[in-house]
Amino acid sequence: MNNRAPEASAGLPENRGRRRLRGGGRRTRTRDVVAEQPPFAQPSMRWKPVEAVSTDELEAIHLASLRVLKETGMDFLHSEARRLLASAGADVDPDSERVRFDPDLVMDLVASAPSEFVLHGREPHRDLHIGGDSVAFCSVAGAPNIVDARGGRRPGNRADYQMLLRLAQTANSIHALPGYPVEPVDIHPSIRHLEAIWDALTLTDKVFHVYSLGRRCNLDAIEMVRIARGVTPEELDAQPSLTSTINASSPLRYDHPMLEGILEMSARNQVTIMTPFTLAGAMAPVTLAGALVQQNAEALAGIAMTQVVRAGSPVIYGGFTSNVDMRSGSPAFGTPEYATACLVGGQLARRYSLPYRSSNVNASNAVDAQAGYESMWALWGAIMGGSNFVMHGAGWMEGGLHASPEKMIIDVDLLHMVAKFLEPLDLSDDALGVDALAEVGPGGDFFVSPHTLSRYQTEFHSPLVSDWRNWETWEEAGSPDALTRATGVVDQFLAAYEEPAIDDVRRDELRTFVDRRIADGGVETDY
Amino acid sequence: MNNRAPEASAGLPENRGRRRLRGGGRRTRTRDVVAEQPPFAQPSMRWKPVEAVSTDELEAIHLASLRVLKETGMDFLHSEARRLLASAGADVDPDSERVRFDPDLVMDLVASAPSEFVLHGREPHRDLHIGGDSVAFCSVAGAPNIVDARGGRRPGNRADYQMLLRLAQTANSIHALPGYPVEPVDIHPSIRHLEAIWDALTLTDKVFHVYSLGRRCNLDAIEMVRIARGVTPEELDAQPSLTSTINASSPLRYDHPMLEGILEMSARNQVTIMTPFTLAGAMAPVTLAGALVQQNAEALAGIAMTQVVRAGSPVIYGGFTSNVDMRSGSPAFGTPEYATACLVGGQLARRYSLPYRSSNVNASNAVDAQAGYESMWALWGAIMGGSNFVMHGAGWMEGGLHASPEKMIIDVDLLHMVAKFLEPLDLSDDALGVDALAEVGPGGDFFVSPHTLSRYQTEFHSPLVSDWRNWETWEEAGSPDALTRATGVVDQFLAAYEEPAIDDVRRDELRTFVDRRIADGGVETDY
Repeated sequence: MNNRAPEASAGLPENRGRRRLRGGGRRTRTRDVVAEQPPFAQPSMRWKPVEAVSTDELEAIHLASLRVLKETGMDFLHSEARRLLASAGADVDPDSERVRFDPDLVMDLVASAPSEFVLHGREPHRDLHIGGDSVAFCSVAGAPNIVDARGGRRPGNRADYQMLLRLAQTANSIHALPGYPVEPVDIHPSIRHLEAIWDALTLTDKVFHVYSLGRRCNLDAIEMVRIARGVTPEELDAQPSLTSTINASSPLRYDHPMLEGILEMSARNQVTIMTPFTLAGAMAPVTLAGALVQQNAEALAGIAMTQVVRAGSPVIYGGFTSNVDMRSGSPAFGTPEYATACLVGGQLARRYSLPYRSSNVNASNAVDAQAGYESMWALWGAIMGGSNFVMHGAGWMEGGLHASPEKMIIDVDLLHMVAKFLEPLDLSDDALGVDALAEVGPGGDFFVSPHTLSRYQTEFHSPLVSDWRNWETWEEAGSPDALTRATGVVDQFLAAYEEPAIDDVRRDELRTFVDRRIADGGVETDY
Repeated sequence: MNNRAPEASAGLPENRGRRRLRGGGRRTRTRDVVAEQPPFAQPSMRWKPVEAVSTDELEAIHLASLRVLKETGMDFLHSEARRLLASAGADVDPDSERVRFDPDLVMDLVASAPSEFVLHGREPHRDLHIGGDSVAFCSVAGAPNIVDARGGRRPGNRADYQMLLRLAQTANSIHALPGYPVEPVDIHPSIRHLEAIWDALTLTDKVFHVYSLGRRCNLDAIEMVRIARGVTPEELDAQPSLTSTINASSPLRYDHPMLEGILEMSARNQVTIMTPFTLAGAMAPVTLAGALVQQNAEALAGIAMTQVVRAGSPVIYGGFTSNVDMRSGSPAFGTPEYATACLVGGQLARRYSLPYRSSNVNASNAVDAQAGYESMWALWGAIMGGSNFVMHGAGWMEGGLHASPEKMIIDVDLLHMVAKFLEPLDLSDDALGVDALAEVGPGGDFFVSPHTLSRYQTEFHSPLVSDWRNWETWEEAGSPDALTRATGVVDQFLAAYEEPAIDDVRRDELRTFVDRRIADGGVETDY
């Protein structure tokens, strides 16, 4: 009675199959899931992204954004940035920080940004193609806290930061680290960027990031990446190798450190990820359309700024529109509104021929069903919206307030699934299987057919965390839920971690730079 | 330090917003989530479904299916069915149960099935439109066991069956019940269909289902639905009011009771849901393409059979292709392969202008992150594949081997989210918010703006289960995970349940029929 077809009432012949199925427990937790990972490779979007609004509707959003930039304008809290914008033709109010933009000026500037580019990793095999049909997945970034099953919740610290770097390095489906997976708050802020980037550039060889917290931080990071890659300043200027997320201080404002980030990053041809922080009902209009108008206005103004600094410098159009729960005032992520915003954001980015960034987010406190379904809403929005750069792809929890190693592993499983989903379907004659069907015939069994045996080992996604054992076997194993299982996989990944080789000369030069800058006192901090 | 923007390193101005956000705990569990549900209404697919294969590739699958039906054929384990097929022009082997089909014959028969129709509920306000852009969501069906947080795992019984009927009746986003949510195994099989359908037709007024377990069961159910609806036999024949899922006994076989179901249901113009059970690597080729070829061959042959019985009778093209985990032999659901199969299945159904059925499935034993993400893979595949009839939409677990009331509630939340996602975006001038942005201006606050206050109560999806409270408030509440929270919502739904009014005469007539048939001994059973 316990092994039946999903839909059948008792006793039907097709139950035959089910009795053999779900009987298995041959799969064990000791298989080498790290070695079995698909190789490090970027997936390609193989379909036309889903268009949530019509061409006319998209144009209405676009035109409304341009009206906002022309009529209301934005505040740019940086005099040099305003000076540059004025010289490029923007309407800069001499008595305030307000800048207004003529639509043609915005569109002309945005048109000079590249539609795709190579983003260089520390080592060449980590180079990423950004834009077009290419997809890059990123680890969580910027979480102030960490929660894991064993240690509970705590503020980020360097040991946990390094642990998450090792996980992200080991996971082949994580292509880049666009920030600190968790903030190492036990490193003094004046030198945090130096030690944290040192850790990232030695414990991983994947594309890394600098927080735009002031000019000096950006300059240090640019120099560190140059040294770690072993290239000349001129080579670095020709090869984008570092990212910095530029959040608008929404609504309609770019603050001083973020603008400084644009000035330094774009001047050196490095990558800015222009991301308004438009939560509908709080920092943006309560309507999704209004929040998207604002997102687009803020993104276009920031992108225009990058092109004023250096025409042709690489920039990613970022969307982060969601809403607040109007009952509690809490932000919501991984909702239907979020998914719709992802789709429309992608349409906007493609309208401007720009690479598109979105995120794998959720607002759950626990690694539970909510974390699973909210992440999938976000991830589907990202993929079907045509995202090229999926931030926070693995490990983001609690609306960004904590990172989770277990969730990172679960997300790595989800990212594998997305990559598998994006593989073209094999429609060769052998795959169509007309001959195999003729051989096996009505009432036959494919489990042991030659067609099956020749392909079964590689045909399907093989999960890290998903547990498909039958109830009895699973219960005997202690009824482990996905969180518990992921804890074991975290251990496997950490045990398998290998520090990526780096040329000794580069490593020594990098450490010398860090030590000298620490001796100099790092950067000034006002906190 | 604990309330910061998702991506920012410490101390940035935009954190302003975050401090207010996630501070709230105003939302409590005592709000009336049942009364707050969106009304009973079918969503409409508002986008072009995602096409996983090109037109040429789809044609290759289609043509391969027709080759299988012509060259290998299928076994029809019912002499009257074979006689009818022979008289319609099929090539019936006199010495076996094998039937082969000329491609033109298949396509001519399939063409006579309606592309859309009305499926009548017990009461008119439960009528459903099946096909076109319309979407109907169904409860779980056919699970032999039930698991809930309080009672653990047990074989289905009538009390649990009735409890799940009450939940499904109360949930506005469940439109139909295509089977027993859990099998009431404590009712003797000879009379189970009588008492179970009695329960369904009195505890709910939504579209119901009969298991095709033999001619007498189908006839009883048809008569019971006729009585419950209070219509004449002629009116019932003109108004599809009952569904029956017809599973192929894959590979390439329809068994006797399922064919009897087609004979009785189609003769009376009732709805068959033609669903091959094609698990790649077990009952179907190990390749996804091969499994889809087989699914399509089996579905087309079954659909052709319905049209031989009665041209124009309503039938739904069903897809249920997934794969087995080749390590354990366990079926996998809610995987990338499953989602791709959903998309291609929809393309096939639309090629034949037929309504399309798919499912919200997962293989998890626990209501955990796996259950959440696998369900979302399945649900996205269903929606973006253009499904008209989403079976097992709420409450399906463990590959169909158990139903879960908590998962039913979580799924109801997901179905609300899908419905919200499918609502057209408001792109009116007021929603675009150019004026609202001008009023609030750079650095302003939308939380208390008139534009926000006029709209906030209805603008966003309001969840049943998702918990967006900040960590501290959530921890004070005992750190309840989604499963725990859903248990409370189950109680709220059951407390709010109201038995739907039914005309006394119809109710009495229905009970009289059931009592008479029970007195007659019900149906013969061989188990």
